[in-house]
Amino acid sequence: MSETQAVEYESLIDEVSAALDAGDEARLRDLLSDQEPAEIALLLESFPQERRATLWRHTGAEADAETLLHMSQDAAEQLAEDIGIEAIVEAADQLDATEIAELVEVLPEEVTEDLLAAMDSLRREQVEAVLSFAEDTAGRLMHRDTVAVRADATLSVVQRYLARLPDVPDNTDQLMVVTRDKRFVGVLGVLDVLRHPPETLVESVMVTDVETVTPDRSEHEVAIVFRDHDLLSLPVVDDGGILLGRVVAEDVMDILQWETERAILAHAGLDEDEDLFAPIYPAARARALWLGINLLTALLASWVIGLFEATIDRIVALAVLMPIVASMGGIAGSQTLSLAIRGLALGQIAGSNTPWLLKKEVSIGLLNGLLWALIVGLVAGYWFEDVEIGTVIGAALVINMLVAGFSGLLIPLLLKRMKIDPALSGAVILTTVTDVVGFMSFLGLATVFLL
Amino acid sequence: MSETQAVEYESLIDEVSAALDAGDEARLRDLLSDQEPAEIALLLESFPQERRATLWRHTGAEADAETLLHMSQDAAEQLAEDIGIEAIVEAADQLDATEIAELVEVLPEEVTEDLLAAMDSLRREQVEAVLSFAEDTAGRLMHRDTVAVRADATLSVVQRYLARLPDVPDNTDQLMVVTRDKRFVGVLGVLDVLRHPPETLVESVMVTDVETVTPDRSEHEVAIVFRDHDLLSLPVVDDGGILLGRVVAEDVMDILQWETERAILAHAGLDEDEDLFAPIYPAARARALWLGINLLTALLASWVIGLFEATIDRIVALAVLMPIVASMGGIAGSQTLSLAIRGLALGQIAGSNTPWLLKKEVSIGLLNGLLWALIVGLVAGYWFEDVEIGTVIGAALVINMLVAGFSGLLIPLLLKRMKIDPALSGAVILTTVTDVVGFMSFLGLATVFLL
Repeated sequence: MSETQAVEYESLIDEVSAALDAGDEARLRDLLSDQEPAEIALLLESFPQERRATLWRHTGAEADAETLLHMSQDAAEQLAEDIGIEAIVEAADQLDATEIAELVEVLPEEVTEDLLAAMDSLRREQVEAVLSFAEDTAGRLMHRDTVAVRADATLSVVQRYLARLPDVPDNTDQLMVVTRDKRFVGVLGVLDVLRHPPETLVESVMVTDVETVTPDRSEHEVAIVFRDHDLLSLPVVDDGGILLGRVVAEDVMDILQWETERAILAHAGLDEDEDLFAPIYPAARARALWLGINLLTALLASWVIGLFEATIDRIVALAVLMPIVASMGGIAGSQTLSLAIRGLALGQIAGSNTPWLLKKEVSIGLLNGLLWALIVGLVAGYWFEDVEIGTVIGAALVINMLVAGFSGLLIPLLLKRMKIDPALSGAVILTTVTDVVGFMSFLGLATVFLL
Repeated sequence: MSETQAVEYESLIDEVSAALDAGDEARLRDLLSDQEPAEIALLLESFPQERRATLWRHTGAEADAETLLHMSQDAAEQLAEDIGIEAIVEAADQLDATEIAELVEVLPEEVTEDLLAAMDSLRREQVEAVLSFAEDTAGRLMHRDTVAVRADATLSVVQRYLARLPDVPDNTDQLMVVTRDKRFVGVLGVLDVLRHPPETLVESVMVTDVETVTPDRSEHEVAIVFRDHDLLSLPVVDDGGILLGRVVAEDVMDILQWETERAILAHAGLDEDEDLFAPIYPAARARALWLGINLLTALLASWVIGLFEATIDRIVALAVLMPIVASMGGIAGSQTLSLAIRGLALGQIAGSNTPWLLKKEVSIGLLNGLLWALIVGLVAGYWFEDVEIGTVIGAALVINMLVAGFSGLLIPLLLKRMKIDPALSGAVILTTVTDVVGFMSFLGLATVFLL
């Protein structure tokens, strides 16, 4: 029994690092021997890429292939290259078809071809069957190795069958009940087999009113079904009612974890495959595009300011104050945007409640706009000893915060309708709007009323 | 068997809304009758607060109490007020001690007191035992109703015991093996009871090398243990080795979901309890503080610009270009910050790899700084037909992006050491740094070299 050491990753990293520096192989093996594949994966990803292949060689052989599945795409791809194709092919031997398909998603194409070529034809067909479903769907996620029984069997037959099976998939909480032609009928809880007399028929204890999904459902939808119905496993059934496999809770926990990572990284224009310890050049390249997109929006804002050069030339205080209007609008808009992104992810925003929501967000923009306009107006008025400048900045602030509330909601709704992920591009578009409107309204009002 | 309708929340919302508008109670009952508590909770949260009490009255009575547990704090609190204390007390009757403690976290204090007063003393003691653990720990999360057996029993005894139990907790995948004095010894998979001969002793099939947690571990740590070890349940054991209860996968999925919501909302200064359909005034108030904090940082940036009023007065092009330097630094910094926040959440950043990481982030800042300095310098030089202005903005950009890489990593590390959540305040502090350094370097260099 091991008291878990989940939060002591940081000290494990330090110890492994020290052992690696000292070349102490015995200590390394000792440190890595009882780590799970997911822990080894995280450990590998906590070292610079050039040290990972060395570390890999010190991990227990059994953990090998599964470890790759827990790594991000960039990291797994690079490691596969460093440790060589033969090692991957060998490691993949312990994986089932679903896991190999997952590996194929992650590995470079050359490696994939070698991997498929090294398999016997039955296994290759199984893997290709998994790959025939689209990425990130239930079909890719499901395991085919379900334990299935017939409705007209007795529980004692089921128990004898289970006892004779050489191997039962991990975390099997329920058995699938199917007809002779594999049509899904219901599920039989493992516990129910134990709790009823042996002569009971499966059909009299099985549950038929259960959730199922078709293989084309997205990972995200599968995760929602698990959460809402407190499931440990979920049968996957095709349109004709034939049982194809089951999705298990452990995979759903991985999906939910990736969703969190995606949420943390998306608004910086990064995806969850970004490797924290990647080498400098590829990492710099991966980030450059997002900086370029941002530069275009910054240049647009500058162009707007440029339209009012003559105004600024006469009243330099405007240059000092103008970032306030843009910045407050940006923050107010991002509050609405973040709530909208969550609401869309949860499925809360429908046609019938959008008008109410829009009214609410615009009203909040107006209320907070008025509040902060008063404060900013007073501060600016005192600072430059000019009531008119205070009035103009206050008015501009109200306009920008109204627009922020409006666009903070409408931008993500429009992006979703255009099938673009609002979590990724919503913030840039919103900032462009609040910058342009902020500078335009403040400098425009100043040009009209102060010159 | 019901083909799941997870993604059709939006259309369900529209249908419920139409039925509610038409006062069609039969249709409402029909729509809501086979929804799970988690689905009803989300549905309620997709309507403005004033309509929720009406909707609540149309939900099936069984779902009631659990529904409250799936709602965000603000929403649950308001609903409790609207439907009245008696309804809550009645609904809570179906909940176990762990769930009531969860409800207590969510409800206003007056309601809690009434709730506890209405219970018999045994139940109240159980609830108070749960509440004695800190919020968001394994102790709060665990369920006490574990099924425990002795190591020296035979499997047939276990099977008879299970058959006689009036009720076995949902999703029981393994039984706890304990000594006479409740000391935790190991776990016995339900499936293993079925797969071994009835005369086998528990001790010969139980697993003793299993993960356990103490009740003081945080929810986040518990979730990590589940993910890394592919668990469906996890025993909670006190320092003396006594079994206290177990955490189940369904609760971990909820935690992971909240972590995603938190990640989406944190950088806009909102928490996951923020209610999208809250009334305007409380929502505006909840957001005002964050706007105020941002105003302070914006005023600081303005003050920096103000230091260079005389410079801007002579070269107005500086006012046009200065937002570019601040904005590019902010974006570059937020890329590093987001990666650091994820790395800290995963436990990837340790003492031994921080220097390498800092070197990497600063180098990326330098590389991308040089790249974009060249481009921005050329654009600015052409635009204002002034090579010197192009040179100055390029130099300022390099400085700001270097600082962005450096502070994007160090700010979250420092915040974590100060026990402040970097996901919440990291972005504001970083933007303050990149704004101040951006304006200071650009206008400062311009003052020295261009005047």
